[in-house]
Amino acid sequence: MAQPDPPLLLGVDPGLANTGWAVVDGRLQVVASGTIRTNPGPPVPRLVHLLAELRKVLATYPVQEAALEELFLGRNASSAIGVAQARGAVLAALGEAGLEVHEYKPNHVKSVITGYGMAGKTQMGRMLGLQLADLSGRDHHAVDAVAIAICHARTRRVTKATHGLAARPAP
Amino acid sequence: MAQPDPPLLLGVDPGLANTGWAVVDGRLQVVASGTIRTNPGPPVPRLVHLLAELRKVLATYPVQEAALEELFLGRNASSAIGVAQARGAVLAALGEAGLEVHEYKPNHVKSVITGYGMAGKTQMGRMLGLQLADLSGRDHHAVDAVAIAICHARTRRVTKATHGLAARPAP
Repeated sequence: MAQPDPPLLLGVDPGLANTGWAVVDGRLQVVASGTIRTNPGPPVPRLVHLLAELRKVLATYPVQEAALEELFLGRNASSAIGVAQARGAVLAALGEAGLEVHEYKPNHVKSVITGYGMAGKTQMGRMLGLQLADLSGRDHHAVDAVAIAICHARTRRVTKATHGLAARPAP
Repeated sequence: MAQPDPPLLLGVDPGLANTGWAVVDGRLQVVASGTIRTNPGPPVPRLVHLLAELRKVLATYPVQEAALEELFLGRNASSAIGVAQARGAVLAALGEAGLEVHEYKPNHVKSVITGYGMAGKTQMGRMLGLQLADLSGRDHHAVDAVAIAICHARTRRVTKATHGLAARPAP
């Protein structure tokens, strides 16, 4: 499969019940996005279904890099086990598929999208809607995945530009 | 590969740094056990290495069922994220390999091995050592995996015997 340059990037917002995903291209346009859902029940069939659907996304879009938010344990620590287990399965599958995986702190993602690290869901959605194509029809898992994908696209552009400058010979 | 009857059973004690595993047969003998280690660093290469080693175990021993302890969040919740992520990757890999996966509460495992649900590590090790072949040379991750595998072997024997009785026609 031909690799576009700059490459396609994948954002993932993993969960046991709902995993948002979004593919963005080098012009920061959303190529595709969606939410993988699993039915309530024991974790193993849910994780197997989640990975099967994620691998379909990887087979359809030749993404080279992926990004996820770092996981912090909130007050509801027992539901965090499910999220962390889904996240571990997703990280392993992305690694096995040969993708470079990046993790960002939630307030970095908010800063990059809105300019404010403490931004709420509404501000995030509004800023993404202003900057991007129509977000309607996407649930909040897919929108979160769009945010992390765009965050990675912008961050890597800055990082690559900075590395480029650093690599220049001194005058 | 010929499937032994009763089948080989796998016990797993997952972790990001150390994952214990043990294969037991129908006579509750330990066929093999070990600990998969990963080097400190970002989680993705560690999870990929863990699954590669786990798949070697599955390729070597035709296990049909696997058992793990249920995960509870202790005081150190942030280290629990790493364990939960490793556990999610392991559960998904076992499910994708077609294994039936069972989860047991820690106090059930302790009860089955020692007769006492609040048993400590030392009591567990002593009882396993009395009941089984020599445990020397195994670290505590592998010993924990032996315990969960033996617990599953005994529990499934009771369950199958009970189902057998229940399935008998009433006199």
